[in-house]
Amino acid sequence: MSGGFLMVLSGPSGSGKGTVSEALMKKNNEIVFSTSVTTRTPRPNEINGDNYFFTTIDEFERMVEEDELLEYAFVHTNYYGTPKKFVFDEIEKGEIVLLEIDVQGALQIKEKYKEAVFIFLLPPKMSELKNRLIKRDTETEEEINTRYKNAFKELDFVGEYDYFVVNNKVEQAVEDIENIIAAERLRVKRHKNIKEQVL
Amino acid sequence: MSGGFLMVLSGPSGSGKGTVSEALMKKNNEIVFSTSVTTRTPRPNEINGDNYFFTTIDEFERMVEEDELLEYAFVHTNYYGTPKKFVFDEIEKGEIVLLEIDVQGALQIKEKYKEAVFIFLLPPKMSELKNRLIKRDTETEEEINTRYKNAFKELDFVGEYDYFVVNNKVEQAVEDIENIIAAERLRVKRHKNIKEQVL
Repeated sequence: MSGGFLMVLSGPSGSGKGTVSEALMKKNNEIVFSTSVTTRTPRPNEINGDNYFFTTIDEFERMVEEDELLEYAFVHTNYYGTPKKFVFDEIEKGEIVLLEIDVQGALQIKEKYKEAVFIFLLPPKMSELKNRLIKRDTETEEEINTRYKNAFKELDFVGEYDYFVVNNKVEQAVEDIENIIAAERLRVKRHKNIKEQVL
Repeated sequence: MSGGFLMVLSGPSGSGKGTVSEALMKKNNEIVFSTSVTTRTPRPNEINGDNYFFTTIDEFERMVEEDELLEYAFVHTNYYGTPKKFVFDEIEKGEIVLLEIDVQGALQIKEKYKEAVFIFLLPPKMSELKNRLIKRDTETEEEINTRYKNAFKELDFVGEYDYFVVNNKVEQAVEDIENIIAAERLRVKRHKNIKEQVL
């Protein structure tokens, strides 16, 4: 009985995905971040296998061809992907693998691996989302407007997810996700030999 | 956004279903027991609509024919069934309707209404189940053996359920079910207009 699973977390930018993930990880040792494979050059402080698995374009394309990735994307000039092996090895150990990813990536995963748990993080109100983006003060007005428009488009896909969590307060959002984890661990489909266990 | 649902709880006799249900209801006001309809004669202390909806055989058979029941069974000389109207009205109000039922009944419901949440309560060990039956001292040895054999057969159907909860300690089993409830309330499929909510 492993009970581990892949937890896919999406949410429009400004929904507080990063903050919620971090708070969740701090409280729960059995959650591990999914490590992506990428073709981009490692930065000086980055360790292979820790932040990312760094690889060549040839090797990445081989992985795509041999279906070794749960999803991948080409961003600017680099490939990024989620290696099956890392995810499945951790699940086998009973861990919960957390993958923060955009809607497009989540949909790719859903097609290949519907056993994952899909959670959509929502801002309490879309106007609040805009406020958060402005407050963050890391984007220009134009960028904020683009992100805001994209957030609207992403919302259309909430129906593709299993759960939604409203990020009104970080602590409550974390607790909601913890409840989801506790329940998903009790899923019959995630356990073999339940009958044998009680005999 | 209602978020209510039907929670079907099964488990072999001796698994502690009754105790767990009672403890769960005491702690959670938003849970209501499903009220069955029956053709048996009310006992002096029983109130129509409270313990059961009492009805005639003709009326019951009409309900069956017009598909007004989620499941029904003929036990000894009486019909017992779960009326859709009661269940759906409570769900509409956002309540959680708890229905304790055997595997056969649960399977009938699953066929008609798979939106329900199916939980299988397990004893920690089957030997423990036998001990509980003996301790209860309400059945003859033969009855205990029959119940024990039936419990084994019921275990084969655990794969038809969504969740399993091991009743090692009542408090823990109750907490597990509370986690399931909290998570199921966050299910996207149980809510309409999530998008409209955040706009």
